[in-house]
Amino acid sequence: MLLTLDSSLHKPLYVQIRDQIRERIMAGAIRVGERLEPSRELAKRLGVHRTTVGNAYAELEAEGLIQGTVGRGTFVSPLASQLKSPPPRARRSTNDFFWDGLFVEEPRDDALGRLMASAFQPGVISFAASHASLELSPVDLVRRATDRVLRREGARLLQYGPSDGYPPLKRYLQSQLRRDGIPAELDEILITNGCQQSLDLLRRSLVTAGDTVACENPTYPGLSRVFDSPGVRMIGVPVGAEGMDLDLLQAVIEQSKVKLIMTSPNFQNPTGRVMPLAARQRLCDLATRFQTPVAEDDIYGALRYHGRELPPLKSLDTAGLVIYLNSFSKVGFPGLRVGWIVASRRVIERLRAAKQRADLHTNLLGQAVLEELGRGGWLNKLLRRTRKLYEHKLGVLRGAAEQHFPPEAVCVYPQGGMSAWVELPAGLDAAELLVKAQDCGVIFAPSQYFYFQQPQHNAFRLCFTALPDHQIERGVTILGELLKAAMRKNGKGRKKSAAGANVALV
Amino acid sequence: MLLTLDSSLHKPLYVQIRDQIRERIMAGAIRVGERLEPSRELAKRLGVHRTTVGNAYAELEAEGLIQGTVGRGTFVSPLASQLKSPPPRARRSTNDFFWDGLFVEEPRDDALGRLMASAFQPGVISFAASHASLELSPVDLVRRATDRVLRREGARLLQYGPSDGYPPLKRYLQSQLRRDGIPAELDEILITNGCQQSLDLLRRSLVTAGDTVACENPTYPGLSRVFDSPGVRMIGVPVGAEGMDLDLLQAVIEQSKVKLIMTSPNFQNPTGRVMPLAARQRLCDLATRFQTPVAEDDIYGALRYHGRELPPLKSLDTAGLVIYLNSFSKVGFPGLRVGWIVASRRVIERLRAAKQRADLHTNLLGQAVLEELGRGGWLNKLLRRTRKLYEHKLGVLRGAAEQHFPPEAVCVYPQGGMSAWVELPAGLDAAELLVKAQDCGVIFAPSQYFYFQQPQHNAFRLCFTALPDHQIERGVTILGELLKAAMRKNGKGRKKSAAGANVALV
Repeated sequence: MLLTLDSSLHKPLYVQIRDQIRERIMAGAIRVGERLEPSRELAKRLGVHRTTVGNAYAELEAEGLIQGTVGRGTFVSPLASQLKSPPPRARRSTNDFFWDGLFVEEPRDDALGRLMASAFQPGVISFAASHASLELSPVDLVRRATDRVLRREGARLLQYGPSDGYPPLKRYLQSQLRRDGIPAELDEILITNGCQQSLDLLRRSLVTAGDTVACENPTYPGLSRVFDSPGVRMIGVPVGAEGMDLDLLQAVIEQSKVKLIMTSPNFQNPTGRVMPLAARQRLCDLATRFQTPVAEDDIYGALRYHGRELPPLKSLDTAGLVIYLNSFSKVGFPGLRVGWIVASRRVIERLRAAKQRADLHTNLLGQAVLEELGRGGWLNKLLRRTRKLYEHKLGVLRGAAEQHFPPEAVCVYPQGGMSAWVELPAGLDAAELLVKAQDCGVIFAPSQYFYFQQPQHNAFRLCFTALPDHQIERGVTILGELLKAAMRKNGKGRKKSAAGANVALV
Repeated sequence: MLLTLDSSLHKPLYVQIRDQIRERIMAGAIRVGERLEPSRELAKRLGVHRTTVGNAYAELEAEGLIQGTVGRGTFVSPLASQLKSPPPRARRSTNDFFWDGLFVEEPRDDALGRLMASAFQPGVISFAASHASLELSPVDLVRRATDRVLRREGARLLQYGPSDGYPPLKRYLQSQLRRDGIPAELDEILITNGCQQSLDLLRRSLVTAGDTVACENPTYPGLSRVFDSPGVRMIGVPVGAEGMDLDLLQAVIEQSKVKLIMTSPNFQNPTGRVMPLAARQRLCDLATRFQTPVAEDDIYGALRYHGRELPPLKSLDTAGLVIYLNSFSKVGFPGLRVGWIVASRRVIERLRAAKQRADLHTNLLGQAVLEELGRGGWLNKLLRRTRKLYEHKLGVLRGAAEQHFPPEAVCVYPQGGMSAWVELPAGLDAAELLVKAQDCGVIFAPSQYFYFQQPQHNAFRLCFTALPDHQIERGVTILGELLKAAMRKNGKGRKKSAAGANVALV
């Protein structure tokens, strides 16, 4: 594609690129289905910043002229043939370019977000997102609970509330925490809009430029996005069969002043690994010895299907160094956005002040509904049914995978949580597999989305909780066929692929 | 009070202070009702940092031994006489002190928060907070709307939603915005957890160390707390009868590169001032000429009781430079935490990414309920009744003030919003008045809480919307008496007071 840019023109460069590509599509010089040059390459060739091309592509995508597909590239959309002339842009501010210089951060590529969005397309079997099963949807429970709390509490729920949370919900959580071996005072609990906000408040209150944070690698991408800010050093600690590698963690702490250790001992996302009791004890000892705070994300903790429950780190924490995070999202209520933090009073005080600046307080109606469901025993009842259903679904996944996956694909079936983890031989690339799977109407999250350092390309996460049984079976069958084909190809081209894997490991 | 500190002890200094004061209270050496030395003075005398004394006082307050009263000081609590020995502290982590060195920011004095909290004490007539009247509480509307949306939308409302907001609510807002002369596309609208989060997202996306922000002075304290971060220069632009002083603003923009202008053209908080049409036009022209973005907070805009509605800045903005903020909080639903931002697509993209990192998305149930109420016409009906009621209450306030306030107290009665602004002669201190008013069971917000620069001490804000008529009358009568007494005293000591006022103006 030959484009001519003129930086002396008053027209911004991205507009020049956009207009010239649009013109060519309209004229039929680039045809429907044709692949556009990757933005990085085009940028290099034109000698402009990559975001300049990205901006042009984004506008063309918004106009419906082109579309991007994860891992495959950007193509001229079938819609383009229906469009005779550029869509009216009169109302669009032409000032978009102006803003680009004002933002604090560079925009990030949101490949995962696009993948999640495609999960909602009709006919797609999505193993991509950790969504709850709709089979147990507690809508009627919520409907009745809302009615009861609004009749009982009335106007109070519509007015401003305390920044640390709706007091009855805090008392309910206190009783539940005690059951889990965490005897928290009320001023050691803060209600947030779910774990994502909890992570954000931790970052705002504790982590600044010059600080080092130790995180599990791979990890939940929402976590690395929160902590990855200018001047903050993130150290990835690999996750093995027993969770975070504590030998490596210790080496890291000994070498650097670590401000915060982030861990998820139960059903770690994405690997599903569980940290055994002895390791939990050792992590608490390390924290105490090196006086290093630990944030424990227990969002999947309540979803154990079988095996003995393990005590949360917070219940083993005699030094007051563990900050415990949890939420109602993974037990069926992500849309209500309610989570909680348990920590030393001093920490909660600061997090509450940060919460107040961030959004005053969490929505009261959601808090009251969850308290009502909790106090009435409905949450625990729902949790028991959820665990049973998810265990069943995991069994369906396992049965299908054992039948259809080639032996080289190693599945890690968790004792709880919402996803399994599949490891492929080195040299196989899960994102390449995704491209083929998408063509067959199946999607999943490839491992590279979860690594913020030293990305591994040969694994993927399968979330099984939201899918009906027949879709799990069908999806796994399709993936099995694709995996077998990939293995055959991998066997043939072993040398080349192995080299590729080595490069990726750098 | 004679305290002996020994920095060679293993015991932290604040613990030494706490324990020695506790000991003296227990021994009766300091008696119930006795005033403690202000923390600043005690810190100076002991040669320790002020937060050290603050920490000791905070712990004693948590134990119930002492209590602080806004503007008056800290006193030994009546509870102290009932306590024979220090309360058990076994379960309290003794690690609180450890954390103090880890936080990113210094703790702030939250005088306003304490004042708001005391508003809920029984018998107190509070003009302090902008709370809605419970007389029109839309609880039954919300109860029925929740039932309808949960029956109709079902599980979808309990699951994860899009970061930019619940699509039907965005479409409803789009139709309302069009009516207000703001023809926004859907991708120019972002739903947030209310205006506080909108401010926070703006700060995160647009303002970093080295940037300058021009804000109205006085202003909503939640705004200055958001923008007041290390390296950010905040310039206070005085608010006059026509809102933000645009001559001064222009001078500021000409002298400094201003990253963002914050303004609230309708019923500015706390002054209640309205920016006239010509000034709005001029502000837009300034923004365009200097290519400076403007954030327009219109949270009180819908609460105009009489007079012609003025077009929002955003509707006059041809250059795409205005970022418009609004919420459902001031029309009766602060507890649901739902607000919105309208801006250029590029700005919304970045704010949405920041929102996703901050808390994924806003709670869906609240969004769906508000959409249901909006689309059904209930919100507009409620708004009409609210305006009428608040206009009536303003009339009650005005009648009482004209009868009971001395002529030297100049009341600025707004054409809308939730509060009136009272200006006193120079030399009178509203915080001192508050101390006396609190003794009589009346509270309000003194002007110094709203200034982030050059604090003025001789004004206060009276929020009248949440109070029953007879409480407005009684509160104003009491304030009138106190004001008259203060005027008499001021008259006698004029010289001294005037000097004090000059000092305060520096």
